[in-house]
Order: sequence, then C-alpha cells, then structure tokens
Amino acid sequence: MNLKDVIAIREDWPKQGISFKDITPICQNPEAFKQAINELVAPFLNKGITKVVCADARGFIFGGPVALALNAGMVIARKPNKLPYVAMSETYDLEYGHNTLEIPANALNENDVVLVVDDLLATGGSAKALTNMIHRSGSKLFGYAFLVELAGLKGRKVLDQVPVHTLVQYEF
Amino acid sequence: MNLKDVIAIREDWPKQGISFKDITPICQNPEAFKQAINELVAPFLNKGITKVVCADARGFIFGGPVALALNAGMVIARKPNKLPYVAMSETYDLEYGHNTLEIPANALNENDVVLVVDDLLATGGSAKALTNMIHRSGSKLFGYAFLVELAGLKGRKVLDQVPVHTLVQYEF
Repeated sequence: MNLKDVIAIREDWPKQGISFKDITPICQNPEAFKQAINELVAPFLNKGITKVVCADARGFIFGGPVALALNAGMVIARKPNKLPYVAMSETYDLEYGHNTLEIPANALNENDVVLVVDDLLATGGSAKALTNMIHRSGSKLFGYAFLVELAGLKGRKVLDQVPVHTLVQYEF
Repeated sequence: MNLKDVIAIREDWPKQGISFKDITPICQNPEAFKQAINELVAPFLNKGITKVVCADARGFIFGGPVALALNAGMVIARKPNKLPYVAMSETYDLEYGHNTLEIPANALNENDVVLVVDDLLATGGSAKALTNMIHRSGSKLFGYAFLVELAGLKGRKVLDQVPVHTLVQYEF
C-alpha cells in the first residue's frame, strides 16, 4: 500500500501555517505498520547495526520494531528528568525555545554501529542532537531512517554524510 | 535469561523513598528485549486481539513490538496537546498532581479486542485511565501485560477482572 494514503494531515495545527503529518493511522493499521517497519529496515539489513537510537516519544514507536528486526539494541533518548542514569545530553533549538535529549548510561560504546530512527525529518534538530551524542560516545553512525521527510525544511543538510532513508516525502 | 537481572535499580530517585526500576538496559540488549516481547505476548497469541493500547512514553517501547507480534494495531495514548485529532481523554491522580492521557480519533471501535501494554504496573492509575477509554469506545478489553509489577502498590485492584500478565515482580 501507499503509506502516504494512510497518513492523516491536519492543516494549521498545532499552529497557523503548520501542516501536521499524523502518523497514528499507520501504527493503528497492522498491515501499514508492518510495511513501514519493513521499509525502514530494508537498506540496513546485514550491515552490522548494533544499536538503534530513537527520540522521545514518537521515535519509540518505530525504533523498537526496527531494533528487533535488525537484532540490535534500542537506545531511548529522553527528555530531561526521565532517566535515572544519564550518559550525556544535548540541547537544540526549536522554532520557539529549545529542547534537550539525554541518553542513558552504558547505552552506547565505541564498538557500536548505530542507526538513528525517527518518525519525522523536519529541520533535523533532534536528529543532529542524537548525532552529536553518538559521536561523543565513540560509536560509529551508520545511517538514518525516517518515516516522513519534509524536504523543504532541508533537514538533510545538518545530518552526517551517511545514508538518509525516508519513506514518505512532502515539501512542508 | 532472568529479566530481573537486566533491570537497573536506582534508590531514592526521582525522590526519597522511591526505588526506581530502570528498564533501559532491557531494550538496549537485543536478547533481553526479544525475550521480554515474547514473554509479554505469550498468553495473548491467537486470542483475536486487534489493538494494543499503550501510554506515552515508555509504553511505546513495548507496545509496538507486542502489536506487531500479535498482528494487531498499536494505539498510542498521549499526553495533552500531542494528537491533532482526539477521540477522548481521561485524567487520573498522581501522588502529587494529576496526568491526562488522550487517544486518537478512529483508534478504537466496538469491534476491537484490546490488550493494554505498559512497562510498569504501580498504582494502576494510567492503566485505569486507559481502561476507561477502552470501555467508552465500546471495545472489548481482553487483558493487560506489564513488564514490571510493584505488587505492594496493589495496582491490580483498580484494573478490570481480565488476565493481568506481569513478567517481573517487586514489592515496591
């Protein structure tokens, strides 16, 4: 099936000018969910990926199934004050204000080969924050997989020069 | 493996008197993560489960893989202002203050047979909120699956009289 047909769009939400891509109908539909995971994983099978890093909270929806399909561990990057043992954190800018992500102690080491998974590539702020932490841990970043890409926001430009795999593209 | 051996405990976090069960080492370990999903799913295979409902954010870690293993849809119950189209919401008490969960429009209907999945059964507040929304949607609640149960908090008492499956038990 065409996954784009399953994504719901709400215009001017959460604020004027934003065309919000709602991925909840994908995970609610077993066939669409399975297809999305298979397509996210496809370019990264048998590449030696040991960890999938995903961001609080929608990244967890896809990060866990992708990790299991790759026989890798799932590393959850969380908002502040959620993890009892924190290895490191990164703060990044949002349109208004900023956000911080933390990764758990002992989650990544220099032997890890890492795939970043998220539902959305927009400006790339959160993926860049994850990238920085992956580098600081000494792990090797192998690539990125996103369900949705908003190509007009040029998030790819802030990412590393490794494969960036996206399933569904919109301009904004 | 014994999953309890993989869970990390931090005493007096996030505040004095709380013994926090940290499940991040389970999802970071591919073998432990796979085992946890297999054990969560086992009693619910071939029972006609059509939807797995899980709560923002740690519930997503286990809810997605369980849904895929059951060939069911994953329904994400989110904190307020995260979902563009909301079917309903429930507010429940925490030790200090309260919390609200919302489920998406079109997520559940009267033909659905539902499993609630979460990382932790403590006082049962969030699972009870999910239970109320499942009833309001007209769906049938089949059971609950939790990775960790804090048995001394007696969360089971507020849940429905359906199977409550937990993998690892502590008193508090």
